[in-house]
Amino acid sequence: MQYLKPLDRPALQALGIDGWAYGFADRVRFYELDALNHVNNVAFLRWFETIRVAYLQDYGLTSYAHDDTDPQIVIRAQSADYFAPMFQNESYVLTARTTLVKPSSFVMEYAAHVDGQVRCAGSAVVVSLEQDGKTRRAHKPEAVTLMIERDGATTEGL
Amino acid sequence: MQYLKPLDRPALQALGIDGWAYGFADRVRFYELDALNHVNNVAFLRWFETIRVAYLQDYGLTSYAHDDTDPQIVIRAQSADYFAPMFQNESYVLTARTTLVKPSSFVMEYAAHVDGQVRCAGSAVVVSLEQDGKTRRAHKPEAVTLMIERDGATTEGL
Amino acid sequence: MQYLKPLDRPALQALGIDGWAYGFADRVRFYELDALNHVNNVAFLRWFETIRVAYLQDYGLTSYAHDDTDPQIVIRAQSADYFAPMFQNESYVLTARTTLVKPSSFVMEYAAHVDGQVRCAGSAVVVSLEQDGKTRRAHKPEAVTLMIERDGATTEGL
Amino acid sequence: MQYLKPLDRPALQALGIDGWAYGFADRVRFYELDALNHVNNVAFLRWFETIRVAYLQDYGLTSYAHDDTDPQIVIRAQSADYFAPMFQNESYVLTARTTLVKPSSFVMEYAAHVDGQVRCAGSAVVVSLEQDGKTRRAHKPEAVTLMIERDGATTEGL
Repeated sequence: MQYLKPLDRPALQALGIDGWAYGFADRVRFYELDALNHVNNVAFLRWFETIRVAYLQDYGLTSYAHDDTDPQIVIRAQSADYFAPMFQNESYVLTARTTLVKPSSFVMEYAAHVDGQVRCAGSAVVVSLEQDGKTRRAHKPEAVTLMIERDGATTEGL
Repeated sequence: MQYLKPLDRPALQALGIDGWAYGFADRVRFYELDALNHVNNVAFLRWFETIRVAYLQDYGLTSYAHDDTDPQIVIRAQSADYFAPMFQNESYVLTARTTLVKPSSFVMEYAAHVDGQVRCAGSAVVVSLEQDGKTRRAHKPEAVTLMIERDGATTEGL
Repeated sequence: MQYLKPLDRPALQALGIDGWAYGFADRVRFYELDALNHVNNVAFLRWFETIRVAYLQDYGLTSYAHDDTDPQIVIRAQSADYFAPMFQNESYVLTARTTLVKPSSFVMEYAAHVDGQVRCAGSAVVVSLEQDGKTRRAHKPEAVTLMIERDGATTEGL
Repeated sequence: MQYLKPLDRPALQALGIDGWAYGFADRVRFYELDALNHVNNVAFLRWFETIRVAYLQDYGLTSYAHDDTDPQIVIRAQSADYFAPMFQNESYVLTARTTLVKPSSFVMEYAAHVDGQVRCAGSAVVVSLEQDGKTRRAHKPEAVTLMIERDGATTEGL
């Protein structure tokens, strides 16, 4: 399997992962372990950030241009549930999806899968701001369309 | 103010922080910033881990001996709410408390305070295991007593 | 190109990278950037660690068993030279080789390549210890053979 | 001792640390440990970065304004020597000094001290650029004066 290459819904289903339309494979690195010799709880949040950044670019929400052509995307809240530990060199598939999209925010879910089982699941409330880091900014319409069509995101106030 | 020196309830109240009995002061470091030039969302979870480790040692739940005299303490779930961004060199006070203690688990809350305002709040469900990383292990009774007396933790099933 | 799949000498040469017999491809992640919006200087040392750990396992120096069947491998010194900045999403090839092997230590070199150019190069003096973390321990002979045969490492005191 | 409060030459000498005019105290955190349960080799480079950033601000080389009033400060090379391992909760004093200053670059040294012994020492070649990240930019003269007066930095080409 190719690492970090975006996987779509059929590719994920072929790996036994249903209900997700965006993912990629990666592998546990030494620096993600802590003194207990398993993947540190915070490392999973790093993974969710990594796939979120890729997702935001691939779905067209931002190009991270750091200028007015793009929103500044920030996290308002996030959570993680840990179901089983992970260890050095384990290969896993990371998935992301948007479940709810509102005019200038959305709710995402994430999961780390090993052999079809979810080791860690997460969620985040993501907000779209102007580059001032304060004013709310509406999403690019094409991105919203992809969130709905690919992920089946529900809408509210759109 | 001294950095990293544990602060008790009166010391925190003197700083305008009510409702917490354990904390310490620290300062934002360059490596906690991300490309948006503010503290990265994941860095706050690192802070919560740092105060949790200090708390677990100071309250006597574990000495991190990595042998059978101690439990292995793991995270089952955690969450964070972000209220306002933080920046390079900002001084903050980090606080932690246990709100609920059960026979082999407990629920903690965390907050990062700047000038009496909470910038980020978090919570975690923490589980006490044997060194096999699987079997549940009861807390040391003295630690439970401190959680109740100092923090006002409620109990369930004890 | 497949990420994280070990690349041997012919595979690296096909990518325009000569003089190396061990490498893999990877991609810059958001958390490796700092407030200057380029890859932080410390992130490169993380990459060198990641390939060193893979190399030590693939060449048979250690299986990271954390028991007496394996040495404890520690770093005595390291250095890095930065030739050009790197940015979000850049794909790169990381390479590692041993240049000198002594009875219980060795010298490694590392490089991060983009389009045939080295962006950052590094070196490390690596020492093999017993699990006590103090006593020197001789390398496994098969590993030394591979360092010589694959990498062309010179020897001293063997 | 107060953590993170800058220590000058007399304050450091009182701690048994000679030859340095800038430092601060800090303490090992859980996230700086790796699977070997000691401070990871890369964490020391993070510490050197943290004191370098504080030093650059305190000596007046940059205010990290990210605009044309300030240079962009980048690392061209760095190295570290590891003399003894460090462990969870250890208190240490971090020191930094400039040994050589040239028109648009300088050489720094760093050390992590525990009870008067150096556990890890480092050095860095630091370059001052315009905000374009390419063109060399001369240092602010007041900063150079402090490097010479406080640290005893030698000069070349000034």
